[in-house]
Amino acid sequence: MGARPQPAIVLVRPQLGQNIGKAARAMLNFGLTDMRLVAPRDGWPNPDAGPSASGADLVLERARVFDTVQDAIADCSTVYASTVRRRDLVMPVLHPEAMAAEIVASPAPCAILFGAERSGLETDEVALANAIVTVPINPEFASLNLAQAVILLAYEWSKHGSLAVPPEKALEPAAPHSELEGLVKQLEGELEAKGYFHPPSRTPATKNTLRTIFTKTGWSSREVKAVRGVIRALVGPARTRGKP
Amino acid sequence: MGARPQPAIVLVRPQLGQNIGKAARAMLNFGLTDMRLVAPRDGWPNPDAGPSASGADLVLERARVFDTVQDAIADCSTVYASTVRRRDLVMPVLHPEAMAAEIVASPAPCAILFGAERSGLETDEVALANAIVTVPINPEFASLNLAQAVILLAYEWSKHGSLAVPPEKALEPAAPHSELEGLVKQLEGELEAKGYFHPPSRTPATKNTLRTIFTKTGWSSREVKAVRGVIRALVGPARTRGKP
Repeated sequence: MGARPQPAIVLVRPQLGQNIGKAARAMLNFGLTDMRLVAPRDGWPNPDAGPSASGADLVLERARVFDTVQDAIADCSTVYASTVRRRDLVMPVLHPEAMAAEIVASPAPCAILFGAERSGLETDEVALANAIVTVPINPEFASLNLAQAVILLAYEWSKHGSLAVPPEKALEPAAPHSELEGLVKQLEGELEAKGYFHPPSRTPATKNTLRTIFTKTGWSSREVKAVRGVIRALVGPARTRGKP
Repeated sequence: MGARPQPAIVLVRPQLGQNIGKAARAMLNFGLTDMRLVAPRDGWPNPDAGPSASGADLVLERARVFDTVQDAIADCSTVYASTVRRRDLVMPVLHPEAMAAEIVASPAPCAILFGAERSGLETDEVALANAIVTVPINPEFASLNLAQAVILLAYEWSKHGSLAVPPEKALEPAAPHSELEGLVKQLEGELEAKGYFHPPSRTPATKNTLRTIFTKTGWSSREVKAVRGVIRALVGPARTRGKP
């Protein structure tokens, strides 16, 4: 995960332990571990949190509890308030992408505030933030729950780190043109032998069409070899196999 | 959400109705409405889905059920398999951002496959896709559930909403998946007749390889037709032509 700045995830007056657990899981999926709880309704620790965290116990164990939002963000330089609602506050409203870019560029600690499940953040809590961060959502169906809001912002943040490197093996490079040329020639030869090109006047156009079809494929050397084997098999005699 | 291309969300063998409901909610938050269910474990409709959808009933009501993945994606030209796992398949692996950009630029229908809650997608299901889409995730805690995977991909897709849809290029659109399927089946049949698949223990892997090779091509309907003609010519008897 490296040492790049990691925002604190501040849950303000969260109600259900289950949702705190789900938020922890969402965080750890993208490498966030600094959870802060402001006045959790049912106290802390909460026995419902663990089972919902699906193994993100580390986040729950390290979670710190504060009485007020001010206390929770005392060490943070830049604070974002996650809310989808329009507010009467005159504040910058950022897309998650822009927020993530700011956080990663910031030399000082940042925090993201998330409101209670039903009521969200109070106006005076939003006012503590430097900016609002809003996930643009279907205006006819805005139903983002706490863990979903957390995971989307954590995901945007994670894009700036080492996680963003695709974990899978690099795709095989496309075969050099000479290999495709070999494939095309083989195919032409076999089709010629079968009397495929007819009438002669249209043969050049047909060959161009085939060439276009077989060179636009992006096949790797390995794949070109496999296709050449397929052509050989198609034109060859049927084989009954069974010997070692 | 406008008329830009919307990917179908294909849930393959989903187990809990609750998770189908959560996926529907995740979809509608970002304006996606085309849900397809392949062999849902507990049948369909499922009484557990509605309550978890939190009002996204429209998505559930419109959901269509299919017996096989092939049936579910028959009308789709480009198919993405959502999986975090390493596979023995040599396929492009895309970041959600790249996938979203491709979907929005595609003039033809696309689909995203999601596997069952525990087991994920089978290798031969992944092989049906044109590319894998992977959310880069904390390697030490990879615990993305179905609805979370859906919401992250839906979110990336939704980002393109305010952008102008690029003008469709004059290029022929990629053939729908059912046509590629026809080509693959024809090829398999002919190769089978030639005794190409040997030994039997490796046949499934060989078939997956061939499927991957022939579905990554981006061939149009016209080109698929031409390739099928080529296969027929290769396996047929040599013809001497000369008559008008």
